[in-house]
Amino acid sequence: MSSSTTSPLRVVVWGENRHEQVEPHVAAIYPDGMHATIADGIGENLADGASITTVTLDDPEHGLTEEVLAATDVLVWWGHAAHGEVADEVVDRVHRHVLSGMGLLVLHSGHWSKIFGKLMGTTCTLRWRNDRDRELVWTVDATHPITQGVPNPIVIDAQEMYGETFDIPAPDELIFISSFSGGEVFRSGCTFRRGHGKIFFFSPGDQDYPVYHHKDVRRVIANGVRWAASDFPREVPTLLRYDSGDFFNGHGYGRAIADADAEQTPEPARG
Amino acid sequence: MSSSTTSPLRVVVWGENRHEQVEPHVAAIYPDGMHATIADGIGENLADGASITTVTLDDPEHGLTEEVLAATDVLVWWGHAAHGEVADEVVDRVHRHVLSGMGLLVLHSGHWSKIFGKLMGTTCTLRWRNDRDRELVWTVDATHPITQGVPNPIVIDAQEMYGETFDIPAPDELIFISSFSGGEVFRSGCTFRRGHGKIFFFSPGDQDYPVYHHKDVRRVIANGVRWAASDFPREVPTLLRYDSGDFFNGHGYGRAIADADAEQTPEPARG
Amino acid sequence: MSSSTTSPLRVVVWGENRHEQVEPHVAAIYPDGMHATIADGIGENLADGASITTVTLDDPEHGLTEEVLAATDVLVWWGHAAHGEVADEVVDRVHRHVLSGMGLLVLHSGHWSKIFGKLMGTTCTLRWRNDRDRELVWTVDATHPITQGVPNPIVIDAQEMYGETFDIPAPDELIFISSFSGGEVFRSGCTFRRGHGKIFFFSPGDQDYPVYHHKDVRRVIANGVRWAASDFPREVPTLLRYDSGDFFNGHGYGRAIADADAEQTPEPARG
Amino acid sequence: MSSSTTSPLRVVVWGENRHEQVEPHVAAIYPDGMHATIADGIGENLADGASITTVTLDDPEHGLTEEVLAATDVLVWWGHAAHGEVADEVVDRVHRHVLSGMGLLVLHSGHWSKIFGKLMGTTCTLRWRNDRDRELVWTVDATHPITQGVPNPIVIDAQEMYGETFDIPAPDELIFISSFSGGEVFRSGCTFRRGHGKIFFFSPGDQDYPVYHHKDVRRVIANGVRWAASDFPREVPTLLRYDSGDFFNGHGYGRAIADADAEQTPEPARG
Repeated sequence: MSSSTTSPLRVVVWGENRHEQVEPHVAAIYPDGMHATIADGIGENLADGASITTVTLDDPEHGLTEEVLAATDVLVWWGHAAHGEVADEVVDRVHRHVLSGMGLLVLHSGHWSKIFGKLMGTTCTLRWRNDRDRELVWTVDATHPITQGVPNPIVIDAQEMYGETFDIPAPDELIFISSFSGGEVFRSGCTFRRGHGKIFFFSPGDQDYPVYHHKDVRRVIANGVRWAASDFPREVPTLLRYDSGDFFNGHGYGRAIADADAEQTPEPARG
Repeated sequence: MSSSTTSPLRVVVWGENRHEQVEPHVAAIYPDGMHATIADGIGENLADGASITTVTLDDPEHGLTEEVLAATDVLVWWGHAAHGEVADEVVDRVHRHVLSGMGLLVLHSGHWSKIFGKLMGTTCTLRWRNDRDRELVWTVDATHPITQGVPNPIVIDAQEMYGETFDIPAPDELIFISSFSGGEVFRSGCTFRRGHGKIFFFSPGDQDYPVYHHKDVRRVIANGVRWAASDFPREVPTLLRYDSGDFFNGHGYGRAIADADAEQTPEPARG
Repeated sequence: MSSSTTSPLRVVVWGENRHEQVEPHVAAIYPDGMHATIADGIGENLADGASITTVTLDDPEHGLTEEVLAATDVLVWWGHAAHGEVADEVVDRVHRHVLSGMGLLVLHSGHWSKIFGKLMGTTCTLRWRNDRDRELVWTVDATHPITQGVPNPIVIDAQEMYGETFDIPAPDELIFISSFSGGEVFRSGCTFRRGHGKIFFFSPGDQDYPVYHHKDVRRVIANGVRWAASDFPREVPTLLRYDSGDFFNGHGYGRAIADADAEQTPEPARG
Repeated sequence: MSSSTTSPLRVVVWGENRHEQVEPHVAAIYPDGMHATIADGIGENLADGASITTVTLDDPEHGLTEEVLAATDVLVWWGHAAHGEVADEVVDRVHRHVLSGMGLLVLHSGHWSKIFGKLMGTTCTLRWRNDRDRELVWTVDATHPITQGVPNPIVIDAQEMYGETFDIPAPDELIFISSFSGGEVFRSGCTFRRGHGKIFFFSPGDQDYPVYHHKDVRRVIANGVRWAASDFPREVPTLLRYDSGDFFNGHGYGRAIADADAEQTPEPARG
């Protein structure tokens, strides 16, 4: 858990920032970009407990350099129309940092982002409809830190419908389930642990609706940011050899095949 | 569940087949290759219930063409020294088939294979030592189909030690835990559901020891093959749009941004 | 898994049979009792694969003697107005059999039965409303045996609403989620493993509506019965002492305090 | 999570205090009783963050009156030889408080306590041997708050062996696995959520050995106490009726059968 009494959480909100450029109705709802609205909501709820910056797809390296990530406690991700434009190299870097302990929030259409898919290992597909359904976000786990301070249910007057079956691994914790006017349901609040990192997926939010201005949605995102942060030193899990009886001194990996010079050290397949 | 009364399960055992080529002591234990021994074990236990073939890394497309995979109910994977040589394109193909419903068994050092890492989303690292530890494989779930027909514990006289912390997502089912002479423990039998596919990771087995000749190890692998097979039609989860009130007719994805011609249809990031 | 090729599953449907006696509208929907309709649905779907009997609350020992339970593969439970009248001794007997391997289906208001509460350890409370909501039962796990052969969603025109928060432990598998006209959601299909037994909770069904005549509800219940049955020999987990190096010969429990004659052998607190 | 900055956690350590009375070797290790040693360990680690008292089996109502429990944030339980002597009425009271939000730690032979069995719903049996095995407590979840500040593994020179199969529901989180000299393994650190309460089961500790004096065991117990505490207002989940469209005003339960005066309101079966 983060020690927020002295140093604020360092939060980066990543926004694709494409819809805002080309769709006037989106720009009208989010004049500074969805990412700015999301960042405001976090700041409003965490106050001095968080130091928040925003970066976008079109920044160099999408704003996610090694230096930025090393100094980020929690990354918040919203993307939709340009998942394919996120460079694989940056995705790998973000992935490595999550596995090392950086928290990650994935919002709405981020379900189809490369980073979420890489962490989940599944297609992350779902049902959908964009037709102003009312969404009710119901609490399944009333004592979870992420569900604190919001009504049960959260009422969102107009939203894009996401429906089961949502192709994700069974979440480590299921904390919200949503229903929509049309009758569909969706596991809208899910937590996952991957490596040393904590991930929170929260589905409400679509560029066509002012969802990120919604008081309760902003509260949940802030709760999620605080939950996802970690004190644990940033380090990626590593394969080490241990001699018999020596539990505390691990040795780095040598050669897989001793008798063949041609064989190289297996590179880790990921991370 | 497989309907084995009429058609046998179609099983493919994938072996890296490198150690056997260059290390005489491995070739002595596995003269036809580890993959052949593993295949024998499955056949011995499933008899007419399985039709088994083997392929290796050095086959064209590593033996895993679209045709082969479409006709495979369960793929069994053993690799160690050459994970990096498995072509990404083939890994993606195998991944898509697992998510579509093909069963997958991952054995021992396959923990570090590209396909296992892709499905898990984590580093899959662990502790290790190759020094003839005795391994005891303890049953945690006595009624699980995979744990049937073997003693509790399974005693393996000489084995490579794998120890916690094993960097995987929490398994959907934990069915075996192993201990080693040196005192280490390991979650040695884990199942995972990903998409429509079922995955069984089983750690005993190392090229330096005759583990795949062990009666109980062979029984567990055969149990795992039967468990991982599926009757469900082979299909990958797909994102579809549904009109209000129409639950049964899904429509393919159109354009993410209606107002900008320049925006293309987002390609699925994976699968 | 049940071997249904030779011997049929032995299924007992337990019905409270009180509403049918005193409420004409219920008797009109279920002239032979809800339990008979449920039993018919199972028989219709499993045919020769099941041998089904029914018993009720007012039978001696509620129809659940030691002999009956020992010869039951799967028990199906529906109760509502008289949970408190089920004798504790019978509940303990059923509990012991479930832990020993007997399958259990708990339907609808059975969420508040003594047996379900004993197995869950929680209050099992929920939200509710009896006002002819339409229920949509959505599939969350498309390849699970219990979800086979029914549409997604199952449409039930009139039903009692059950809503989150449902106070149960996190299910081992979440397979259905329902929505209601009023907007509530509920984890309507949940599986649990307790001891050697498999439990399936399925919420649709209320004495005021003909839900147990619904084709798809009947199919799910039959799927659940087949899933919950077990080949594993009926035996309750037992505490045994093992000498060092002897893994296979367990010894019964002796005395907790060796130095005090007054101390008796601790009785198992349950089971 | 507990707000420990202003008010200390109110911790009660419940000890059976029988072995200490009748077995001199136990009294020698724990002259003030195991419960006192456990309490010291918590105080040593939480300092001003905790206000700790101890109560025993032979106190009136076993020291666990309604007033005491209402003022307890976390209850720590050690029992062994006299589980059967704990009054059912007190067990029910403790159960209700845990479901309402009181944290609970169950230590070692407490696996067979009435309260743990009531919360788990299973027999909670296991394998055992009391023969000075060395226990190694391995960390499975390195970032969990409970595993902080101790080596991996924790080395306990002499301990009673507990071995799988441990008949518990699958833990919500598995955080430690132990091995013993004899080769057995055990899920020694498990968390469970039941109702609004958090439960931590930790197996090391036996009256014959000075385990509760062990620095790392004391640290884990203190970590567990802090983890199990909750800010959530103390309230038991309750069944309420909600009118259509009114999500926020629940109504208490009326009558199960409207047409029969003889029918009473179903009492909650537990809680």
